[in-house]
Amino acid sequence: MSLSFVEMAESLKPELIEKKVYPTRLVEMKADTEAFQGWAVQESGSIESLRTEAFSKGDSMILDFGDHHVGRLTLSLQSVDARADSPVRLKFIFGEMPCEIAESFDDYEGWLDRSWLQDEIVNFDVLPGTYTLPRRYTFRYLKIEVISPARKFKVEFPDIYVTTETSADVSQVPALPDHVPEQLREMDRIAVKTLQDCMQTVFEDGPKRDRRLWIGDLRLQALANYYTFNNHELVRRCLYLFAGLRLEGGQVGACVYEKPEPAGDDIYLYDYSLFFVSTLYDYYSVSEDRETLVRLWPVALEQIEISLRRLDERGIVKDDPSWYCFTDWHEKLNKQASAQAILIYCLKRGLALAVELELETETVAIRDHIERVSDAALAHLWDQRQGYFVSGTERQVSWASQVWMALAEVMDTQANGALMDRLFDDNLEVRPMTPYMYHHLIEALISSGRKDKALEQMKAYWGQMASDGADTFWEVYNPEDKKNSPYGSNLINSYCHAWSCTPTYFIRKYFLQT
Amino acid sequence: MSLSFVEMAESLKPELIEKKVYPTRLVEMKADTEAFQGWAVQESGSIESLRTEAFSKGDSMILDFGDHHVGRLTLSLQSVDARADSPVRLKFIFGEMPCEIAESFDDYEGWLDRSWLQDEIVNFDVLPGTYTLPRRYTFRYLKIEVISPARKFKVEFPDIYVTTETSADVSQVPALPDHVPEQLREMDRIAVKTLQDCMQTVFEDGPKRDRRLWIGDLRLQALANYYTFNNHELVRRCLYLFAGLRLEGGQVGACVYEKPEPAGDDIYLYDYSLFFVSTLYDYYSVSEDRETLVRLWPVALEQIEISLRRLDERGIVKDDPSWYCFTDWHEKLNKQASAQAILIYCLKRGLALAVELELETETVAIRDHIERVSDAALAHLWDQRQGYFVSGTERQVSWASQVWMALAEVMDTQANGALMDRLFDDNLEVRPMTPYMYHHLIEALISSGRKDKALEQMKAYWGQMASDGADTFWEVYNPEDKKNSPYGSNLINSYCHAWSCTPTYFIRKYFLQT
Repeated sequence: MSLSFVEMAESLKPELIEKKVYPTRLVEMKADTEAFQGWAVQESGSIESLRTEAFSKGDSMILDFGDHHVGRLTLSLQSVDARADSPVRLKFIFGEMPCEIAESFDDYEGWLDRSWLQDEIVNFDVLPGTYTLPRRYTFRYLKIEVISPARKFKVEFPDIYVTTETSADVSQVPALPDHVPEQLREMDRIAVKTLQDCMQTVFEDGPKRDRRLWIGDLRLQALANYYTFNNHELVRRCLYLFAGLRLEGGQVGACVYEKPEPAGDDIYLYDYSLFFVSTLYDYYSVSEDRETLVRLWPVALEQIEISLRRLDERGIVKDDPSWYCFTDWHEKLNKQASAQAILIYCLKRGLALAVELELETETVAIRDHIERVSDAALAHLWDQRQGYFVSGTERQVSWASQVWMALAEVMDTQANGALMDRLFDDNLEVRPMTPYMYHHLIEALISSGRKDKALEQMKAYWGQMASDGADTFWEVYNPEDKKNSPYGSNLINSYCHAWSCTPTYFIRKYFLQT
Repeated sequence: MSLSFVEMAESLKPELIEKKVYPTRLVEMKADTEAFQGWAVQESGSIESLRTEAFSKGDSMILDFGDHHVGRLTLSLQSVDARADSPVRLKFIFGEMPCEIAESFDDYEGWLDRSWLQDEIVNFDVLPGTYTLPRRYTFRYLKIEVISPARKFKVEFPDIYVTTETSADVSQVPALPDHVPEQLREMDRIAVKTLQDCMQTVFEDGPKRDRRLWIGDLRLQALANYYTFNNHELVRRCLYLFAGLRLEGGQVGACVYEKPEPAGDDIYLYDYSLFFVSTLYDYYSVSEDRETLVRLWPVALEQIEISLRRLDERGIVKDDPSWYCFTDWHEKLNKQASAQAILIYCLKRGLALAVELELETETVAIRDHIERVSDAALAHLWDQRQGYFVSGTERQVSWASQVWMALAEVMDTQANGALMDRLFDDNLEVRPMTPYMYHHLIEALISSGRKDKALEQMKAYWGQMASDGADTFWEVYNPEDKKNSPYGSNLINSYCHAWSCTPTYFIRKYFLQT
């Protein structure tokens, strides 16, 4: 059965849409304390000048391709002054952001492997010649350093372009109504581009780094996708991959690999496996694809059953100092309350599916579980004195716990609204760290009747990213610490990241009314 | 007409013969003042151990493929300890010789472009996977350094091999008679392998560096080829290439490029263009291919006519401080006398071809030229007092001038023999520097009746190379200065070089009689 899910997934593998994109100008990266991460992009020449300039050892150039792209580089090389009598050796550095071009990869000491940094040294044997580098790159900027020739001849670059790849069909994206203000249009445009560049043969988390299908990202990408590219098949493919590549215990894994053959990773996360239920729910709500629902329902139900086993005798998710639940990148965040809330959130979506499938026993059972788990949350995690949900033995009060409890609708809308107001008034210390957590904050504000606050927050976060020069929205963004990285180096952060693409979802779902 | 010569050449492009070759052991390069160029190869492990060893950042290994090879590298990669969750970044250093593995390319300061040094940094996105690197390499040793992974997983190399390429069919090489002594068998074996590795879609000068068809090398390769692989088509192809890609003035260029399309270089060398005549003569003598002779005779005659224009009123080749004639890599060597001798040598072969073609006028004219140019040599370049031919305004007395005058048979065999004897007795200062010049020394000794001396010299030179660890014979070899390089670094010397392959020609032509 698992095998056939993977086969179904493979039959849905999309053809990629390709497009040639040419560089628009030559630039330099200038140290500038006012600029994002300390680097300003300065135009240094027209692209026409590149076509006739001759390069030799020690020369370099930085090409600006005008926007963020995912694709393969093709370049033509020819010699001038003399025929090329030796190979040409070039170094290529691809950067989503100026920091990747301006700072040396050789000094990288982050906690993920250096091989994610996109640089190559390539020898070209035959000139004149047109070469396409074999790997896919994710970049806006490309620095080319000439290592050789040094002597008899020089090298020219008469042609250079990237063939972009995506499974997103931009012609499907509805135009925004004219009345939508410029700042929202801009956020929408960047968010759509973010999603587009992550949409490959799966919904990748980041096309530069990881390049994997994570279910936490998939859930948000799918939501944004329903309002833009509306590619149901790709969501279906990803659901089948997760269903077909479960862990030994039946859990949906946190991520799967596509190549060389579809395979699951061994990472299990409490929240991520539950999101199979909500992602299926969202998919069915939009697609009404009952066939897929019927096939995948057992897997969703299995996730619910597995998750319920983690409850203690009080009906509370057992806490654990290890990485059992993701929620957000935050060193200090205790995940217990958010895990509890996510369980409730997904049980409610599971219930809706059981009802849709007219499964009497399951409907009754899930309804009972929702009541028990919600009651337990209010009895043991709600601190009436503080007016907050607490988490873990230290009774931590964090933004994440309140946000998820609001999304789980453990309390009524009015109480949730008051909870959100308190959160902003008190400005609790353990704040959202990632666009992923910000997404849930925005959604919680909207669902608790705080739409204006949601818009304000969206502008303050993604709007600020746009002001800071985002071509696509980023994996990590802390306006207070712009070099922040969960990996020990901002160079390795993903600057086009799936879980950051939801402004388009919010704008198109909630903010198009005049 | 030129075009059709190139078309004929292209129709003769051979299919390459491929063979998989596996590494035989793991080695280390040890500093050793007794060893050639200061590096000894020491076995450090069996190849079986490689298949199960796991590597991560900072680890490296040196594979010994057991002999010199030309081909493409294929390697399989798989992860252990965990699934590969990032690309694998490897550095490859290919070496014909231990120095290339033991010394850093980063410190290279030679006079040819560094891109000839064979190293690559390659990122592999998908594991497990089998990859074939796109370029051809020339090597016996391969060092692999692991740059990444550094963290979650390690990398294994379950399979690695080179697919060798050559147009030489080893089954065509006649076995040597049993009585041939071991030292000659060994020299023959190495020479044949040298020729084999240089035989690609043309006769390359060196498969590592230059990878081009030079007529000076072609002439010697063709001679060795007639006694070994006996591939007439490849010689014919190369003659057509030179004929079809002449310089604007009609001169046969010194070298041609095959890729991206056949094209001549702009280097004209007096001796090299004349060697078109002698190479055609040698080819016809063996093949009796009259069709090719008839087609290419006009080109040969044109070279003679062009060369005769360089004579001054005395009938002596005009000297020039620039690189107008190759003869040998020697900073101090004056080329006038050798150019004069090579003209005579090639006129004599041109005469034989004119006679063969029954061309009365040309026969008479060339015979007259031979007489005039030989007389001029004796009148103006022969120094009766010293008993040597002199060269240039400084009246330089070099080995090369005597050797070429002997080969040109300006004097009779007895006088040439005496000249050779004097040369060795006096041990003139401006000595042969390259295997190319040594070839002519050996040939001159044999043709002047000094066969024993020829054998002794061959053993002292190529035999010493073999003792110094040659798997294939070298471009440059100075037993007095083993790091000698005409390019400022022994790293960039070619250690499998066409013009060094002629011991097999000498052995099989002159030394098989018991």
